[in-house]
Amino acid sequence: MNEFELIRQYFAQSNTDRPDVALGIGDDCALLHPLANHQLAVTTDTMVDGVHFDERLSPADLAHKLVAVNISDLAAMGAEPCWVSLALTLPSSDRLWLSQFAEQLAEQLEHYQVSLIGGDTTRGPLTLSLTAQGQVPCGQALTRSGARIGDLILVSGQIGDAALALQQEKLADLPATDIGKLEQRLFRPTPRVALGIQLRAIASACIDLSDGLAADLRHILKRSSQAAGEQLGARIDADKLPTSDVAKAVLGAKAAAQNALRGGDDYELCFTVPANRLEQALAVAEQTHTPVTVIGEITSDSGLHIEYLKSPVEWQAQGYLHFTD
Amino acid sequence: MNEFELIRQYFAQSNTDRPDVALGIGDDCALLHPLANHQLAVTTDTMVDGVHFDERLSPADLAHKLVAVNISDLAAMGAEPCWVSLALTLPSSDRLWLSQFAEQLAEQLEHYQVSLIGGDTTRGPLTLSLTAQGQVPCGQALTRSGARIGDLILVSGQIGDAALALQQEKLADLPATDIGKLEQRLFRPTPRVALGIQLRAIASACIDLSDGLAADLRHILKRSSQAAGEQLGARIDADKLPTSDVAKAVLGAKAAAQNALRGGDDYELCFTVPANRLEQALAVAEQTHTPVTVIGEITSDSGLHIEYLKSPVEWQAQGYLHFTD
Repeated sequence: MNEFELIRQYFAQSNTDRPDVALGIGDDCALLHPLANHQLAVTTDTMVDGVHFDERLSPADLAHKLVAVNISDLAAMGAEPCWVSLALTLPSSDRLWLSQFAEQLAEQLEHYQVSLIGGDTTRGPLTLSLTAQGQVPCGQALTRSGARIGDLILVSGQIGDAALALQQEKLADLPATDIGKLEQRLFRPTPRVALGIQLRAIASACIDLSDGLAADLRHILKRSSQAAGEQLGARIDADKLPTSDVAKAVLGAKAAAQNALRGGDDYELCFTVPANRLEQALAVAEQTHTPVTVIGEITSDSGLHIEYLKSPVEWQAQGYLHFTD
Repeated sequence: MNEFELIRQYFAQSNTDRPDVALGIGDDCALLHPLANHQLAVTTDTMVDGVHFDERLSPADLAHKLVAVNISDLAAMGAEPCWVSLALTLPSSDRLWLSQFAEQLAEQLEHYQVSLIGGDTTRGPLTLSLTAQGQVPCGQALTRSGARIGDLILVSGQIGDAALALQQEKLADLPATDIGKLEQRLFRPTPRVALGIQLRAIASACIDLSDGLAADLRHILKRSSQAAGEQLGARIDADKLPTSDVAKAVLGAKAAAQNALRGGDDYELCFTVPANRLEQALAVAEQTHTPVTVIGEITSDSGLHIEYLKSPVEWQAQGYLHFTD
């Protein structure tokens, strides 16, 4: 089997049919019809064997996560997912691996009504890179730069379980079903697409939580400070952070909050809303069946200020960084 | 230095300013304004260390080639290059490597007036993947599927030198300047952007030569046969293949033609034109200062038929394939 047959066999058929794809896999380029009066939102996320994942993730987990982390970036912009291009580098043409990966990829793409429009399949160390594209009406995209003093800070869902799943030494006494739940959060995250789209007219800033709440919120503060022309800060009420019952049972409530602040890979949305739009935000959260929690406020006091039950705490709150010396 | 500073430092500034980029590097997604009444052309090409290149290529060569091979796919569709996303996986944050790579990347992107709109930088085995996007007026894209019986087959430039550069054992007696010329074709190919755009209304089918003339022409035959609903073939007059003086001197004229037919990595355009549009094709070739040569004809005789000075020859004419068992 050569690379062309391989691509055809595993990917060309497992494809969501979209009328805006004039030409899909099989030519020098795909040809797409973008919507009038919309902007394209484009993102790329790469997963490298031994860096972003290990042998605990099945081929199906990898396909799920690769799609989810990219779609999550579109969700954070309030964009509607449309098309993806896959750059897949793998050590050999392992048919079992490919069929399991391709099947879950197809399932995920169909779930989001997204077309696989092309890519490149090469031999080499296992590396998966996806470029995902979405569309959003002109001027309605959510960015990191719109937060202003007094805005409330919210997160969707629960946070911290993906990071807890990595701390295997703490999980020894847990029932297998609880470990499974934690791993599900790490291996198969759920991007908040519907919420992101509904927040277009409501949120002032938005980001998806990949590096960890503290690190990602700092991205909002930095970009929003630049845009506002003044230094913004944030107060986080760490006792309000939505952590899971499992995390609280394993770590205790306070350490679970600290874990939620630092841990990455949650792929929940963190967003800010002016106080007078809070009700609207809560309403669309309910409409989209997405729990959201107010966890703090944008302040004029530069930097990130963590409080636990109204008392300041000094928590190392760095996200995961590649290439840190 | 962490990954965020690294990206900012080396890539965020080296960016071509385009008015259609509403938001570039630094948010969850880039935001782009596509043109009305145009289609997007999207392509992805990956280069893996030890598979697609070796230590002979400098960081600047890699940047040049990565951009060129992707832009070449846009050229083959007649699309105007606009934006690229870079997925860069590298073993360490080598500042010298990064500065040399980023400088040439910026130079190439500026040359084509293309913006780097985002991507992902990760740690791992050296792998470079680019997703490039262009735009083409609706209905005017060149594809692989429009060739019809009687169409003439043309190629741009000269072909075979990139493949010859890989056959080092044959180059021992060559002057260094000649070896340099061959390596230039392999390391720093020139996509035929202007020609591709001008061929929009003229060529019936088009492909860029990455896998080798024989292999790539078979792609045109396959797609065009499907579209035409009948089996198409091609006659190639191998003695007409435009090979370089260096290749002829090293290999002899006939073997140089064979090398040109099989060799990949040329990134010239191979295209078909109905006979009554040949003059137009030659005119736009002259306008765009791109030599083109008629090398054969689309026939009703299924398959690829190679002739040398009017006599059939049986040449193994397979392109390079990954994952060939």
